[in-house]
Amino acid sequence: MINRRNLVGAGVLGLGGAAAAFANPSTTPLAGTPAITRNRRKLNMVTTWPKGLPGLGEAAERVARRIMAETDGVIEVKVFAAGELVPAFECFDAVANGSADMYHGAEYYWTAKSSAYPFFTAVPFGMTAQEIMGWIDFGGGQELWDELSGQFGVKAFQAANSGHQMGGWFRKEINSLDDLVGLKMRIPGQGGDVLRALGGSSIAIPGGEIYQSLQTGSIDATEWVGPWNDYYLGFYREAPYYYGPGFHEPGSSLACGINRRVWDSFSPGEQAVVKAACESVNHTSLGEFTYQNSVHLDMLVNEHGVQLRSFPPEVVTAMAEAAWDVRAASGKDGIEKRIYDSFEKSLKLMRGWSTISDGAYYAARDANK
Amino acid sequence: MINRRNLVGAGVLGLGGAAAAFANPSTTPLAGTPAITRNRRKLNMVTTWPKGLPGLGEAAERVARRIMAETDGVIEVKVFAAGELVPAFECFDAVANGSADMYHGAEYYWTAKSSAYPFFTAVPFGMTAQEIMGWIDFGGGQELWDELSGQFGVKAFQAANSGHQMGGWFRKEINSLDDLVGLKMRIPGQGGDVLRALGGSSIAIPGGEIYQSLQTGSIDATEWVGPWNDYYLGFYREAPYYYGPGFHEPGSSLACGINRRVWDSFSPGEQAVVKAACESVNHTSLGEFTYQNSVHLDMLVNEHGVQLRSFPPEVVTAMAEAAWDVRAASGKDGIEKRIYDSFEKSLKLMRGWSTISDGAYYAARDANK
Repeated sequence: MINRRNLVGAGVLGLGGAAAAFANPSTTPLAGTPAITRNRRKLNMVTTWPKGLPGLGEAAERVARRIMAETDGVIEVKVFAAGELVPAFECFDAVANGSADMYHGAEYYWTAKSSAYPFFTAVPFGMTAQEIMGWIDFGGGQELWDELSGQFGVKAFQAANSGHQMGGWFRKEINSLDDLVGLKMRIPGQGGDVLRALGGSSIAIPGGEIYQSLQTGSIDATEWVGPWNDYYLGFYREAPYYYGPGFHEPGSSLACGINRRVWDSFSPGEQAVVKAACESVNHTSLGEFTYQNSVHLDMLVNEHGVQLRSFPPEVVTAMAEAAWDVRAASGKDGIEKRIYDSFEKSLKLMRGWSTISDGAYYAARDANK
Repeated sequence: MINRRNLVGAGVLGLGGAAAAFANPSTTPLAGTPAITRNRRKLNMVTTWPKGLPGLGEAAERVARRIMAETDGVIEVKVFAAGELVPAFECFDAVANGSADMYHGAEYYWTAKSSAYPFFTAVPFGMTAQEIMGWIDFGGGQELWDELSGQFGVKAFQAANSGHQMGGWFRKEINSLDDLVGLKMRIPGQGGDVLRALGGSSIAIPGGEIYQSLQTGSIDATEWVGPWNDYYLGFYREAPYYYGPGFHEPGSSLACGINRRVWDSFSPGEQAVVKAACESVNHTSLGEFTYQNSVHLDMLVNEHGVQLRSFPPEVVTAMAEAAWDVRAASGKDGIEKRIYDSFEKSLKLMRGWSTISDGAYYAARDANK
């Protein structure tokens, strides 16, 4: 269905001086001209995002556009929304088996492959955006990620970050731990495990069906992303209490995964382009979420009467304690344990600095003019 | 002294198929091969950083290395430490007048050119790293920056971020506003203006001379960057009280500025490469500072007995109030006022979101296990 290496025209078009020489034997390479062969090709990028999704869907498009622009179109990347070529949760397999070249998505969608994948997206009471950038690039995260995904023939990079996510929309206020018992909430992954540990039930519902589930009462609450994305799904009309912050996803890192043979076939320059495109999009999307979440939070509160709430301290403490157990359960042995240990070591190191720097700053700035 | 456009070998080496055709008339371009001319050249990047400075100096080197790697060496960038070609504070002029091609530095060093430049680095009680990324890319900041720097023939991008900086090293504790009166502190820029408004004196001393000034008692306190950079200058041996957070620089954005004619001479692909290289380094350096500040804070506190302190609330409030006046004084009319207005509008918008997301999260995480 998907052509892995779609070489344009009659085979390889050499755009380098030396390659042109091969195409036409009468040409002699210029003295000192390096033999840069630029193989024109089209790559397919499958994504876990619905068509037109702002923020994350746009991040995937940005990665594709930047790779194309930076290579003067030598590498063309065509982006497919979830379901267009493969369903969202099959993106990883499609890239691993070579039926697609790249994916853009959330690593915690591959938890069935390895329980350690959530550490590369977000885990409850885990790292914020800046912290996960620190761990992956400087705390040993990327090396472990390469080892884990290398087992499946995939090479992945950070390629978007949503920043802090919200705790969700609730029909009734959460005033004590009792209010969580029996609560039916749409909250996937490790966040769902935390809710279950506290007596609630986590229900898996695709994004497009959440609103109706809230409306019909089949769920009592839902989380989604943050003010920007949540605004457009209109949850505020059904569940007016908006809880924040979201302890289950303190800064979700999204990834671009590349089939290992495709990656290895890139020239060193092309590899540098693809990596920088991904990382530059990580930069751009984090700024975009920070800005757009602010714009849309303002609209939700001031134009739609949304009631902002924070969880009571006893609820936060119980969530934090459950989160430690949930994280530990994801890293029991083998490479999963090494990833868990590395993550926890970096988290322990960084939480002190974050608290006295940005943390103390936000509190002090808020308390003043 | 500096060659602006150092074309290697005999003039322009065309690496594209069509360009090779011009170099050797017997070659016919392949059908469908676009005429991509890749002009090999060497560019000079002057920087405001001392030789070998970790973090910021390394960020400049990273920008250069990534541009070279992404273009397969077609654009070679040679980095010069402060003083090697021009003194730190003359980098902007060198790029504006074309005697250097690019600079890497802090925009607030160019305050003599425009009082609005500090808004593109950091201002007291201003934006954190994520917030300034939001403003520049999505709140209108880049357009105003382009307009301001365009007046001098410079095009600039975000190209590193130090994250939150610390409040500085003090020989004696700061227990009240009285303790700031008469305090002699090394603190440049708008942070110095705030200290002066509160009765202290801000003294300008280059990085390499701060330690001795502390030792001889010619200053009572100093700020520098954060735990990572401060560690190596050894201030803890002279001034054991380390105050945080630093309200004067809540997330300093560093820039790569490019001579406008050099920028315009790049192909669209080369422009995309340079922009992505800068932004990917912004991503990398923010993660690096987050991680390395954490490592070095831990060493300072646990191995060197550094006493962490936070400013008392009355001091914070007075600093915050002075900061509003200092910021306003930087944007009185013309483009400076438009930059100030845009910055303040985005800051007002984002501070609410930051407080209930990362801000509340850091406090809650710190209060728990």
